[in-house]
Amino acid sequence: MIIVLKPGTSREQVEHFSADLEKRNGVKVNAWYGEHSTVLGLLGDTAGVDIEAIQANELVESVKRVQEPYKKSNRKFHPDDTVIDLGHGSAIGGGRLAIIAGPCSVESEDQIADIAREVKGAGAAFLRGGAFKPRTSPYAFQGLRAEGLELLRHARAKTGLPIVTEIMSPAHLILFEDVDIIQVGARNMQNFELLKELGKCDKPILLKRGLANTIEELLMSAEYIMASGNDRVILCERGIRTFETMTRNTLDISAVPILKKLSHLPVVVDPSHASGHSWLVEPLAMAAVAAGADGLIIEVHNDPPHALSDGAQSVTPDEFRRIASHVEEVAGVFGKTLSRRDDQE
Amino acid sequence: MIIVLKPGTSREQVEHFSADLEKRNGVKVNAWYGEHSTVLGLLGDTAGVDIEAIQANELVESVKRVQEPYKKSNRKFHPDDTVIDLGHGSAIGGGRLAIIAGPCSVESEDQIADIAREVKGAGAAFLRGGAFKPRTSPYAFQGLRAEGLELLRHARAKTGLPIVTEIMSPAHLILFEDVDIIQVGARNMQNFELLKELGKCDKPILLKRGLANTIEELLMSAEYIMASGNDRVILCERGIRTFETMTRNTLDISAVPILKKLSHLPVVVDPSHASGHSWLVEPLAMAAVAAGADGLIIEVHNDPPHALSDGAQSVTPDEFRRIASHVEEVAGVFGKTLSRRDDQE
Amino acid sequence: MIIVLKPGTSREQVEHFSADLEKRNGVKVNAWYGEHSTVLGLLGDTAGVDIEAIQANELVESVKRVQEPYKKSNRKFHPDDTVIDLGHGSAIGGGRLAIIAGPCSVESEDQIADIAREVKGAGAAFLRGGAFKPRTSPYAFQGLRAEGLELLRHARAKTGLPIVTEIMSPAHLILFEDVDIIQVGARNMQNFELLKELGKCDKPILLKRGLANTIEELLMSAEYIMASGNDRVILCERGIRTFETMTRNTLDISAVPILKKLSHLPVVVDPSHASGHSWLVEPLAMAAVAAGADGLIIEVHNDPPHALSDGAQSVTPDEFRRIASHVEEVAGVFGKTLSRRDDQE
Amino acid sequence: MIIVLKPGTSREQVEHFSADLEKRNGVKVNAWYGEHSTVLGLLGDTAGVDIEAIQANELVESVKRVQEPYKKSNRKFHPDDTVIDLGHGSAIGGGRLAIIAGPCSVESEDQIADIAREVKGAGAAFLRGGAFKPRTSPYAFQGLRAEGLELLRHARAKTGLPIVTEIMSPAHLILFEDVDIIQVGARNMQNFELLKELGKCDKPILLKRGLANTIEELLMSAEYIMASGNDRVILCERGIRTFETMTRNTLDISAVPILKKLSHLPVVVDPSHASGHSWLVEPLAMAAVAAGADGLIIEVHNDPPHALSDGAQSVTPDEFRRIASHVEEVAGVFGKTLSRRDDQE
Repeated sequence: MIIVLKPGTSREQVEHFSADLEKRNGVKVNAWYGEHSTVLGLLGDTAGVDIEAIQANELVESVKRVQEPYKKSNRKFHPDDTVIDLGHGSAIGGGRLAIIAGPCSVESEDQIADIAREVKGAGAAFLRGGAFKPRTSPYAFQGLRAEGLELLRHARAKTGLPIVTEIMSPAHLILFEDVDIIQVGARNMQNFELLKELGKCDKPILLKRGLANTIEELLMSAEYIMASGNDRVILCERGIRTFETMTRNTLDISAVPILKKLSHLPVVVDPSHASGHSWLVEPLAMAAVAAGADGLIIEVHNDPPHALSDGAQSVTPDEFRRIASHVEEVAGVFGKTLSRRDDQE
Repeated sequence: MIIVLKPGTSREQVEHFSADLEKRNGVKVNAWYGEHSTVLGLLGDTAGVDIEAIQANELVESVKRVQEPYKKSNRKFHPDDTVIDLGHGSAIGGGRLAIIAGPCSVESEDQIADIAREVKGAGAAFLRGGAFKPRTSPYAFQGLRAEGLELLRHARAKTGLPIVTEIMSPAHLILFEDVDIIQVGARNMQNFELLKELGKCDKPILLKRGLANTIEELLMSAEYIMASGNDRVILCERGIRTFETMTRNTLDISAVPILKKLSHLPVVVDPSHASGHSWLVEPLAMAAVAAGADGLIIEVHNDPPHALSDGAQSVTPDEFRRIASHVEEVAGVFGKTLSRRDDQE
Repeated sequence: MIIVLKPGTSREQVEHFSADLEKRNGVKVNAWYGEHSTVLGLLGDTAGVDIEAIQANELVESVKRVQEPYKKSNRKFHPDDTVIDLGHGSAIGGGRLAIIAGPCSVESEDQIADIAREVKGAGAAFLRGGAFKPRTSPYAFQGLRAEGLELLRHARAKTGLPIVTEIMSPAHLILFEDVDIIQVGARNMQNFELLKELGKCDKPILLKRGLANTIEELLMSAEYIMASGNDRVILCERGIRTFETMTRNTLDISAVPILKKLSHLPVVVDPSHASGHSWLVEPLAMAAVAAGADGLIIEVHNDPPHALSDGAQSVTPDEFRRIASHVEEVAGVFGKTLSRRDDQE
Repeated sequence: MIIVLKPGTSREQVEHFSADLEKRNGVKVNAWYGEHSTVLGLLGDTAGVDIEAIQANELVESVKRVQEPYKKSNRKFHPDDTVIDLGHGSAIGGGRLAIIAGPCSVESEDQIADIAREVKGAGAAFLRGGAFKPRTSPYAFQGLRAEGLELLRHARAKTGLPIVTEIMSPAHLILFEDVDIIQVGARNMQNFELLKELGKCDKPILLKRGLANTIEELLMSAEYIMASGNDRVILCERGIRTFETMTRNTLDISAVPILKKLSHLPVVVDPSHASGHSWLVEPLAMAAVAAGADGLIIEVHNDPPHALSDGAQSVTPDEFRRIASHVEEVAGVFGKTLSRRDDQE
């Protein structure tokens, strides 16, 4: 961490401030007296140093972090890719391209089982489906909740596909014991109490980037989960909020190579939520694969106009089949194979 | 709700689609056959109609909501201002300008008691202080938690000031029974499970706007609380995230008159979080009052450079005294008086 | 155009307003009297109707445009792709993938000639190079101006590559007579006086999207050029400004398929300006091709650390060779061939 | 300027790089060898140093500017407020609050003369009116152009009010010789060729902030004008583009105190363009004055629904009279008097 002091700071003030910094933060401070201003360098582990408190000091002109504030999710300290492998071919990362597919909301036993069969046949290695649904309006369908989780388990029993579903409150964790991957939605990316609880469970967590969160904040939220003991985190880019209104969100495609460089965690992309339009799912899925994503999460519905949520962005099973086949082809150019179930139904 | 259909839609398709809409949504549909396109108008309560599902229909070109999707927070149905009155002069709304002040984090018994005394003397009608702290980094100070709530109660006992403090999880509600106003932070504005729980308690809720949330979404989150039974919601504008980096967030000052027009709920502004710089608190507080805010929430710390959080944006008690006095003067021009405690210490 | 009137508008007011609309705008107005509100539909050419003036009417609740406001750039009226073909294999659109490459700034005769040779050999079909440079600071290098254009012509003479270079003022048009494609930079996308002048010249215009401009506004700026008589416009997505700071801009990859759907004009992507980092050029170029772009514009410099502008985002000739080869491979999956010069040096 | 080098950089590399920096930039470089990384400090005038080129160097981890890149607009070097005084009471800055008012577009001789008389009577010290109009659509009214300037001069002759009007191209400068203050619109804030030309004329320039431009970029554009010789620049905050759609733009009220702190130039606010709704003009004008603005620029139209542009955001003369009176009252609290014409009609 580099601290630039205001012009006119006396040597005595510098020494007093440096000693205070060393005492409070357990770091070593080096002062460099320039012609017009003095610069302090903090050495040691500065991840816990409060930049705000330093900026509040009247001697300080500006502060710059040199070390990244995330450690466990940082590729510098863990050069090898983390692979989330649930067996039988269902793996994310490590040269495989994984497709997670399914409806926005679980609606009925037949609906989820049929879609599960369809997406597995087309190349999905995981089944997604919402039981607890975060909706902007309290008057909109809120999900089947516990019953939805039950229906997901039925679908898994029929197809073998591991299930990925969203949690909205630590109080619901007890219901998620038989879920394979727990998803944290964009709106809860900085629900820190939830993240801490998820850090104590032994399941992979699919962590979606918040609508207004930076790439660094996404890594810091992964860090919350990892610092609590759970190393299996999957990062998900799903679009950020900008001034453009033609899409529901703006897919930040650059986040894919950046996250892959900064972190060892696998990165998946959600083209359905990023665009909000079913016809955009295919080109955005292609772009995500070409940019280096380890996987895709795609909303598929047998009857989009009658979907209980997110109909506009859901593709049909037929469209999904074409997209998955196309994804496999593009992934091949990048030396990746599709993650596919190898078990028998 | 107005639905524009694609050119070429047949009369039979229109009739079939209209009947489907009526059956599913309990509304009445009128079709208007134009020269080039057909427009449908939905009459009745459309707050629960899923715009997504309609957009997913292949006949639909675009959809436009005419009715606002929020009802209980809507001024159209409740023309009179809601006033949050906790007695002894501590009221928000109804021609009074209320100042909520205190440290970002509760740090010690003396710290919170001293600041409480200072801000009360200067004109604050409520004491704020964080016990549970949402921090971007898991390695940063997370608040004194239950102990912090205890210290807030001590400070209230000494000064009479009602306490406002943030909740981060429904699981903590049991600890908040003796809190006067529960705050929902920006990061939890769409933590819908938390909002539903808060809708069942009988305390006022101070609901902060999320960093990337629209004014309409803020009202929809208020609607979650109100639809669950709790009508006492205070809306708080605290800055949104934009490309500008000189301030921590961009205070959306227009949100103040817009919220006052659309809703009957009181509106307060947080100039401390909006700017992130203590020297900006005063001009932004003035602007908020001039734009019609019912109150302010200001971070005050006796020793900002040693604050355990948000030091850079905290003003000192002396600065606060000047700001409060100035606020009173400007409020006077707008016919408002400062909300002041009338009890004895 | 659909106009929703305020509740309580009388039939007489509706008729008077409708007559006024018809007289002023040369359209036909149909009124639809609903139970709670009245809706007007405007038929005919509404591209020139001023939505602002209508919103200013006290009877009006809201207005919604149904017809797109752009006509000449609209694919609805021109279903076939526009192809910009400069001969000898240098074409953009129509199943070919064109790479425009070269330095940010033209710096010397040797520099531009060497880079031109290098990029041609690696697969570029056009040479880019800035002579007039828009720089944030008046103290930064402003380009070689007229001399830079002269050096570009030398490089073209040696390699045959058509040249693409930016114009900053209508007053400079006289210097651009021998340029092959004139570029309008992001900062001038809404410099309407410049656009009108460019509409009168007979050269293709490469129009970059502004940092804060919507997709629709980009099409409206293309419309300015086309409405003045020049149909040869190339649209360029080069990143928009968002809150994310890890990249110089945020590449809006969704703009590619959307522009291809809404318009018949060719679409190129600039991964260099979008990211601001040379190491991101390759993954973003891959994503652009996979999303359906017709071309790429890439900054290449023989000695990036000593470039007079944009060094951080320039790739070396060796890196460019690898990227171009990779682009060709990915384009092949999408049935596209690389646009290549077929002439002799 | 502080440059952090990558870990592992050798002392020889550091020395070679430092020597190169000194030679190219005319600065002095100090190296500070830390335990894990080396930091370089550049001393001297770094305003012209190209941060991009430095970042392109493979030894560089990151760069931080310490000195502001703007000089002539910087308050550090010119502590006293710049006042734009056109005589007869029409002054901006220096303790006076100036109101610039008038229609979006000049439409006819009577229209502009009538509005001029009205706004002067209500307290405006300057008349605004657009002759050259930047419109998103080429099919919308483009202004009366030269004739509009002529009508503005008539209105000035009748009222004495100095005129403020927008220029869109350096080619039009010859027509602006008799204009009192030349306005640069938001879309042309980074039209650097125009700025340079305006730097050579001897008229005050009202420079509006671009929709996606930072505060620092606004100061850099002012610097362009000043570096070319014209010191009389007025800065104007008129809203930036964000995700919020209820307002046309988001007024960045914080920009007012920040610009006043960083620069000695006067700062005015345009509540009409910032909001896009006439009913928001008053509260935003109040907020601007309370935040410390030196002036306001307000759109006034005698018949907003029939205005040829910007009808929705124009107030009527009666509304303007109320706003101006209210502005005067609030300004008084801040010790400011309204700038008023003292001449006779």
